Amino acid sequence: MEEDKITNTIELQDPLDYPKQAWTHFQLVHQKSPLIQCITNFVSMDFMANTLLSAGASPAMIHSVDEIPEFTPKALGVCINVGTLTPDWLPGIKLAAQVANQFKKPWVLDPVAAGGSSFRLKACLELLGLKPSVVRGNASEILALFKGCVDSTSKGVDSVHGSSDAVEAAKSLAQQTGCVVAVSGAIDYITDGDRVVYVYNGVPMLQKITASGCSVTALITAFVAVDPSHAVEATASALAIFGVASETGMDMARGPGSLRTLLIDSLYGLDEATVLGRVRINHL
Amino acid sequence: MEEDKITNTIELQDPLDYPKQAWTHFQLVHQKSPLIQCITNFVSMDFMANTLLSAGASPAMIHSVDEIPEFTPKALGVCINVGTLTPDWLPGIKLAAQVANQFKKPWVLDPVAAGGSSFRLKACLELLGLKPSVVRGNASEILALFKGCVDSTSKGVDSVHGSSDAVEAAKSLAQQTGCVVAVSGAIDYITDGDRVVYVYNGVPMLQKITASGCSVTALITAFVAVDPSHAVEATASALAIFGVASETGMDMARGPGSLRTLLIDSLYGLDEATVLGRVRINHL
Amino acid sequence: MEEDKITNTIELQDPLDYPKQAWTHFQLVHQKSPLIQCITNFVSMDFMANTLLSAGASPAMIHSVDEIPEFTPKALGVCINVGTLTPDWLPGIKLAAQVANQFKKPWVLDPVAAGGSSFRLKACLELLGLKPSVVRGNASEILALFKGCVDSTSKGVDSVHGSSDAVEAAKSLAQQTGCVVAVSGAIDYITDGDRVVYVYNGVPMLQKITASGCSVTALITAFVAVDPSHAVEATASALAIFGVASETGMDMARGPGSLRTLLIDSLYGLDEATVLGRVRINHL
Repeated sequence: MEEDKITNTIELQDPLDYPKQAWTHFQLVHQKSPLIQCITNFVSMDFMANTLLSAGASPAMIHSVDEIPEFTPKALGVCINVGTLTPDWLPGIKLAAQVANQFKKPWVLDPVAAGGSSFRLKACLELLGLKPSVVRGNASEILALFKGCVDSTSKGVDSVHGSSDAVEAAKSLAQQTGCVVAVSGAIDYITDGDRVVYVYNGVPMLQKITASGCSVTALITAFVAVDPSHAVEATASALAIFGVASETGMDMARGPGSLRTLLIDSLYGLDEATVLGRVRINHL
Repeated sequence: MEEDKITNTIELQDPLDYPKQAWTHFQLVHQKSPLIQCITNFVSMDFMANTLLSAGASPAMIHSVDEIPEFTPKALGVCINVGTLTPDWLPGIKLAAQVANQFKKPWVLDPVAAGGSSFRLKACLELLGLKPSVVRGNASEILALFKGCVDSTSKGVDSVHGSSDAVEAAKSLAQQTGCVVAVSGAIDYITDGDRVVYVYNGVPMLQKITASGCSVTALITAFVAVDPSHAVEATASALAIFGVASETGMDMARGPGSLRTLLIDSLYGLDEATVLGRVRINHL
Repeated sequence: MEEDKITNTIELQDPLDYPKQAWTHFQLVHQKSPLIQCITNFVSMDFMANTLLSAGASPAMIHSVDEIPEFTPKALGVCINVGTLTPDWLPGIKLAAQVANQFKKPWVLDPVAAGGSSFRLKACLELLGLKPSVVRGNASEILALFKGCVDSTSKGVDSVHGSSDAVEAAKSLAQQTGCVVAVSGAIDYITDGDRVVYVYNGVPMLQKITASGCSVTALITAFVAVDPSHAVEATASALAIFGVASETGMDMARGPGSLRTLLIDSLYGLDEATVLGRVRINHL
């Protein structure tokens, strides 16, 4: 997963002004301050909440079936992540997805380590059947969902495949499910089954920060929540903005500890010039 | 909630030497190193424990009904926070409150998002009935407890009301329950139903750090644990000390990521001159 | 627990080149990038995962009985920590230990606050009966396991004994159980019941960082996973490397907040010269 960003080897074709679009999405999040309900793993809750807060959104970590029917309709988007899944969390997770659907709120699935076990894969496939707006995973996770089988080479949450390996799987999965599928990696790929959009932002050291993937999925939820009719573009904007924040954070980072802190600071302080100058999104 | 600290517009009347009192409380915490049992949400556990450690207290995150009868009596105070509540946590929470009462140990309630759902509100009201020494919430949470109804404008954990909106509600709630009620916000209000004490310390960026409210409630628990007979004053001291640490942290912070780190550093390193020079507490 | 490292008062006898060995172990972790399954408390998950990632290992926080039979065999080592234990976590914890044993994978036990309650002590003793490769605790925890009784002076997770108080208990415990026992403190002691190895690295401020003990246990798991036939040496190497990272982090730290961040940075960036120059391990 240490493959370099090959930003220089692909001709940017840019009929759409993606950097401008990313800035518009980012501003929208600040203006609407969307309430994002997160049902996520124990590892990521703190970093995810801080990511959402620093980007201008309002996180709520609420997972009880006893309050989802009443609370979820108030949220503008729901982020569901199966990282530390046990069976007792599944009813709440499914109910939140159903309530979100019922109230036409977008929800986003992070199928952490989908190929790590049959239990986990089954849960992820069931959730996929509940039609999230977006699924964001690494290559190994998207391939596991596509193939519908456990990955014998699985290393838990870490991908053993490069993101480009999963592009065709992501397109097929998007066509089959109707979801937008995002494969994150050295390059991020976002597809609705037809178009493929590429995001070149980010730094390799993000892989050394636990829950950085979970947090970007939460950010995607916030961006899609404020622009649900353009899920592909909003997803690309979120991935690019998070990537830019990591790049500017990297300027001062001494390692993954300080990068994590600086990423939050950067996300909080991102200005228009930085976003317009740094966002690198493309499509074929 | 971005209203500025209006520290300059109120005449400080200071028959009591609040800064000195805050320093005395802070020193007491270091001397006694009180064992503080925390039953709190998944988001806040790490930051809360580090807040207590950096202030000289000794945190223990223990929530099982199987050990509360034996463990809680050893604690000098108990902090209860309903952030990521599910029904299975309630028996332990209630038992800890009861054991604390039985052993005359102060316990402090943080009614996170009390108005967010009926389930949550009911739980908070039941806990209020178990007579915490102190309840600390933002304005929306205190108003929800006072009105006893779900807040349709609730944005989860974030207040949609300014802290001053809740002063009268806080006073009434304190009179009805016998608890000290603290409303935190741009200005913090602490009342026993009779007196109202104001704390002007803190920085707006604290609202961009998840669990900063939870952590200050834990700090209140430690301060009240070492001076249980002066719960109003100890609560004011804790809010002021936490606020001062955020102010000195802010001098070097680049955003909420670094502020969180610097806040812990500042809390650890606070000296007498800084506390005496910076603490701003008042009463009418 | 604020006793200074008495590094100058003990003659280093060094027939083995411990610093070289520590560097070799550290390199092995980077080369193999071992998948380490962690079943740990809610407080430590984030810091533990980041510790493993920064040291080159691959963490997976997975605790469901539904996937342990399928997932645990893929891991190279299992770290089990009882910090926020409730009865519903015990079946998964025990199953993971049993599967690890069955597949000849080392597992390491962190008996957090073992003497804090009967429930906790009983669970720890049962886990000890499942033969971990290594047990790592502070002096109070190791003494509680050795004596098999609840510690009336227990302050939860914080030790009320110096690490040297527990050396003889650790030796006996190792002889009785066949486990390697590590007592961490101002000096760390590692014993298989026969030999005793001492590690002098580390800084007192680690005690002000929550889950630093949990995290070093996870690091021990990674080191033992890549060299299971030398559990004493691998444990000593892990404790020394973590200690060295804290020492170099301390050079720039302003308090426990920044030390935590810098510790991760240092662990990520440790080079051979620093390890060889700083590791201080000895034996009698």
